[in-house]
Amino acid sequence: MKNEDVMNLARKRGFLWSSFEIYSGSAGFFDYGPLGATLKNRVMEKWRNYYLVREGFYEIESPTIMPEEALKASGHVDHFNDAMTQCKDCMDVYRADHVIRDSTGKEVEGLENQELTEILSEEKIRCPKCNGHLTHVWSYNLMFQTLIGAKGKKTGYMRPETAQGIFIPFKRLLRFFRGKLPFGVVQLGKAYRNEISPRQGMIRLREFTQAEAEIFVDPHDKSHPHFHRVAQDILTLYPASCQESGAEAIQLTAEKAVMDKVVASELLTYQLCLARSFLMELGLSEDVLRFRQHMSTEMAHYAIDCWDVEVYTDRYGWIEVIGIADRTDFDLKSHSNYSKEDLRVFMEYPEPLTIKKLVLKAKMGKFGPLFKGDAHMILKALEEIDAEAIQEALDDGGVYQLELQGKVHKITSDLVDFQVVEETLRGEKIYPHVIEPSYGIDRIVYSVLLHSYTQEDDRSYFKLPVEVAPVGVSIFPLVNQEELATVAQEILEDLRNQGITAEKDTSGTIGRRYARSDEIGVPFAVTVDHTSLEDDTVTIRERDSQEQVRVAIDDLPQTLHLLLSGKKEFKEFEARK
Amino acid sequence: MKNEDVMNLARKRGFLWSSFEIYSGSAGFFDYGPLGATLKNRVMEKWRNYYLVREGFYEIESPTIMPEEALKASGHVDHFNDAMTQCKDCMDVYRADHVIRDSTGKEVEGLENQELTEILSEEKIRCPKCNGHLTHVWSYNLMFQTLIGAKGKKTGYMRPETAQGIFIPFKRLLRFFRGKLPFGVVQLGKAYRNEISPRQGMIRLREFTQAEAEIFVDPHDKSHPHFHRVAQDILTLYPASCQESGAEAIQLTAEKAVMDKVVASELLTYQLCLARSFLMELGLSEDVLRFRQHMSTEMAHYAIDCWDVEVYTDRYGWIEVIGIADRTDFDLKSHSNYSKEDLRVFMEYPEPLTIKKLVLKAKMGKFGPLFKGDAHMILKALEEIDAEAIQEALDDGGVYQLELQGKVHKITSDLVDFQVVEETLRGEKIYPHVIEPSYGIDRIVYSVLLHSYTQEDDRSYFKLPVEVAPVGVSIFPLVNQEELATVAQEILEDLRNQGITAEKDTSGTIGRRYARSDEIGVPFAVTVDHTSLEDDTVTIRERDSQEQVRVAIDDLPQTLHLLLSGKKEFKEFEARK
Repeated sequence: MKNEDVMNLARKRGFLWSSFEIYSGSAGFFDYGPLGATLKNRVMEKWRNYYLVREGFYEIESPTIMPEEALKASGHVDHFNDAMTQCKDCMDVYRADHVIRDSTGKEVEGLENQELTEILSEEKIRCPKCNGHLTHVWSYNLMFQTLIGAKGKKTGYMRPETAQGIFIPFKRLLRFFRGKLPFGVVQLGKAYRNEISPRQGMIRLREFTQAEAEIFVDPHDKSHPHFHRVAQDILTLYPASCQESGAEAIQLTAEKAVMDKVVASELLTYQLCLARSFLMELGLSEDVLRFRQHMSTEMAHYAIDCWDVEVYTDRYGWIEVIGIADRTDFDLKSHSNYSKEDLRVFMEYPEPLTIKKLVLKAKMGKFGPLFKGDAHMILKALEEIDAEAIQEALDDGGVYQLELQGKVHKITSDLVDFQVVEETLRGEKIYPHVIEPSYGIDRIVYSVLLHSYTQEDDRSYFKLPVEVAPVGVSIFPLVNQEELATVAQEILEDLRNQGITAEKDTSGTIGRRYARSDEIGVPFAVTVDHTSLEDDTVTIRERDSQEQVRVAIDDLPQTLHLLLSGKKEFKEFEARK
Repeated sequence: MKNEDVMNLARKRGFLWSSFEIYSGSAGFFDYGPLGATLKNRVMEKWRNYYLVREGFYEIESPTIMPEEALKASGHVDHFNDAMTQCKDCMDVYRADHVIRDSTGKEVEGLENQELTEILSEEKIRCPKCNGHLTHVWSYNLMFQTLIGAKGKKTGYMRPETAQGIFIPFKRLLRFFRGKLPFGVVQLGKAYRNEISPRQGMIRLREFTQAEAEIFVDPHDKSHPHFHRVAQDILTLYPASCQESGAEAIQLTAEKAVMDKVVASELLTYQLCLARSFLMELGLSEDVLRFRQHMSTEMAHYAIDCWDVEVYTDRYGWIEVIGIADRTDFDLKSHSNYSKEDLRVFMEYPEPLTIKKLVLKAKMGKFGPLFKGDAHMILKALEEIDAEAIQEALDDGGVYQLELQGKVHKITSDLVDFQVVEETLRGEKIYPHVIEPSYGIDRIVYSVLLHSYTQEDDRSYFKLPVEVAPVGVSIFPLVNQEELATVAQEILEDLRNQGITAEKDTSGTIGRRYARSDEIGVPFAVTVDHTSLEDDTVTIRERDSQEQVRVAIDDLPQTLHLLLSGKKEFKEFEARK
């Protein structure tokens, strides 16, 4: 299987390996080795280039440990659960939905614990290991718990997502953006999920890296000013309706997807297009990408629309690498309710609005003598009440009874007048809606390695895009000879000083060195040969075509800069085989 | 105090604020806002440029959650403690050394719990809050603890430092570097410390960011090939001897510091010089920097030499921002012992070594018949023992007693012969030593903000170095007029597309906008005025000098690139007031 070849090569050459190997490992944790960490950093740099530089969003960084209150508000303390069952004999634990799926083929996401327990019993499902009886299904919270501080010992959790760290300081962020919508804030960082028994390599990690953007928008305007830039992009969409009817995914332009209401808004569709172009620039081809809409059973109750960006893998099938959702005002409202802080935004109307309003005026000549010391308090209370309700009560000689501090005051029509006044409203306070693209960086790195892995007649290698390849250029003296080695060393230092990641390799035949360099995806190899000593030129060999060109040593840094930034393509040179 | 002014401005303008404010906060946690996170990222990018690009080290990334075994091996489970005491009346808890210091002025770092308890009692120290009696001093482990997995519930901790994640996969790293010393591996990431009661803002965080390099070197060669590059750097050193005698810090060239053995090695001194140049490029001046050597009481028992790089602050005095240590082979040896994995490196000798060695040869004619079935096992056992020890025992007709599986076998001189043979050794296995520069990124960011804060007659602002300023350029239409606004918007988009962080500001007088832009440390402001509409030029104003130059709009991206990368200085233009 491709997955195994890729993971073996990745382990052997220093991209990725299971963490804590010398302590017999710990499931769900991976180390990024020297090449893997560099690849991952470059993928994140690219992401920042998309969301910070191009979209103009800002990054923030909040703690990975969070106090319980904040995660109570977000719903994670109560609802971030997996349904679990345990074998009464061997005591092993399982996700109930996995046991059911493996035994019956049924997908049971979204069912209640009681329903799952019934299925286990009806289908006579037993422990997959020892055939023992399984317990009732219960909810297991997936957050890593800890205690903060030596005194009082406050409960805390490792954050289940980076997003909450953006919602909590919303007031400060709003102030930074001078109170105006729309604006976008992103966070890149670790998130945690204490999986019951992670057995899927890089796909199910207990600690993983997210890149999330929270885009705060006017709920009444979900258009995107730059939508025209992506309108003709073709998206492979797999709407809920197709999934339900067993139909295939469909291909639509972004424009048509919005027009036909396949995707809920321009804002959401724009994000699908960004995700697509991001993944394609990482070397993933259109035929291993699709956008799958959440079915009604899996979508959060508050969301308007959710799409998973999926990548096809031979080992795990289609896997979600990015989730894109319109979360409405759910998060800000929840935090507002729990914290008692007003997290709304004042939205100015395009034009101030003039409204007519009924107001009550007390006839103070009668009002004062009647209520005496209470008069002021009663007046204040009446101002808070809708004047129309009072007027209605007084119609036809009625009485309005006002209860204040256990005392009832009778308001009659001889005590008050009503008047229609004009009032100018500049705007209103609203909760913004949130569009959230959430990228799983580890799964993206895995997908990039998987799909860049290329087997040709005599070599296998990671065909990584130049922009993210961890090493940009390998430098080889053609043969092991001091003059050549000296020139190679000078080139190495020169390139490094100019910010190009370069490595020198002097051991083994040149063929063997090309193979080693290709294997880890180095896009270019520079060879110093005897001609180099005569005319100060070297050859550059391209990894993919294996073709070579000869360039002056002095031009090398500039040429490699152009090639590695993608500003020039190798085939623009006149190459020789 | 400067600290308060800086933190107020930082909070107000979106650099930094206490986390979880709407949930009444959580001590020891800070959010980096939009400007703070960008500043921090730029500081880390600069660090990578030093250690990855220039030094040629590689970065890895390991999990922040670690299983208990690994931290048992590193010593953190047993020794990562603070000495704590509690008030018997109000139940508040304290670090014993802090209570003693605050009450008597004595520094008691390194003392045992028993000794601290005695001081508390002898000095009649009471609870600083309620004057209650304090308990015996006990050890409180500073790691955040959690449980990994649903079954079995393995104990885990949030890592106390990033370094351990580099030691644990040492074998894989050694393989990546093809088995050759020296090599350097770095990690940037979160580390955690469950402080008893953090009350010092950014200085004592429960979650913080480290950038650590572990440089694995030959214990017999602590010279540095590029030492000449830093030899003439002048270091402000505060050696342990000066601290003990109450003398002042001294100034020495790096070369002299090595020659006079003030610092233990070239390798260590080279790191001091790197740290100095890193901090100075971040705008910290020499007079707020010093290198303080660890006193014998505070230095880890296994270390050869340790230096704290300290920055002076008005609020907290001298604070450690970087620690630089020669940790010897302590970490690799500990992990080797605990994991039973051989973490040594095979060091080839410059020339193969021929040694003479005494070996034992059994006289099989006698040996076989005497020991029968045990003969083979006994022979194997004898081979493992130093032949000289056996020969010595047999001298003068003695007997060597070999105990094997509870049975004693008598070896006499008639059973064996001794022979001197020559053996060729290509090298030997050794534990490398580790040089570790450990940077506290949060404290560095705090120091940069603190010392860049500048108050002049009519303005206060962060005089941030161009390279790390979060926003590179502000763009202002001189007055609020559509033609000017359109040009400003075009410039904004053009600069952003070219990777320059730019912001537009259209509200308020131009003076007010300059002030706002200066305040957050934007190094350059571009103003679009009426002349711009005539000849396609704009002015660039420099934050520090407040001088302006006029440049063509077409040249703007290139000019700003040069200015922001520090490749060109503003004063090279002919400026006009």
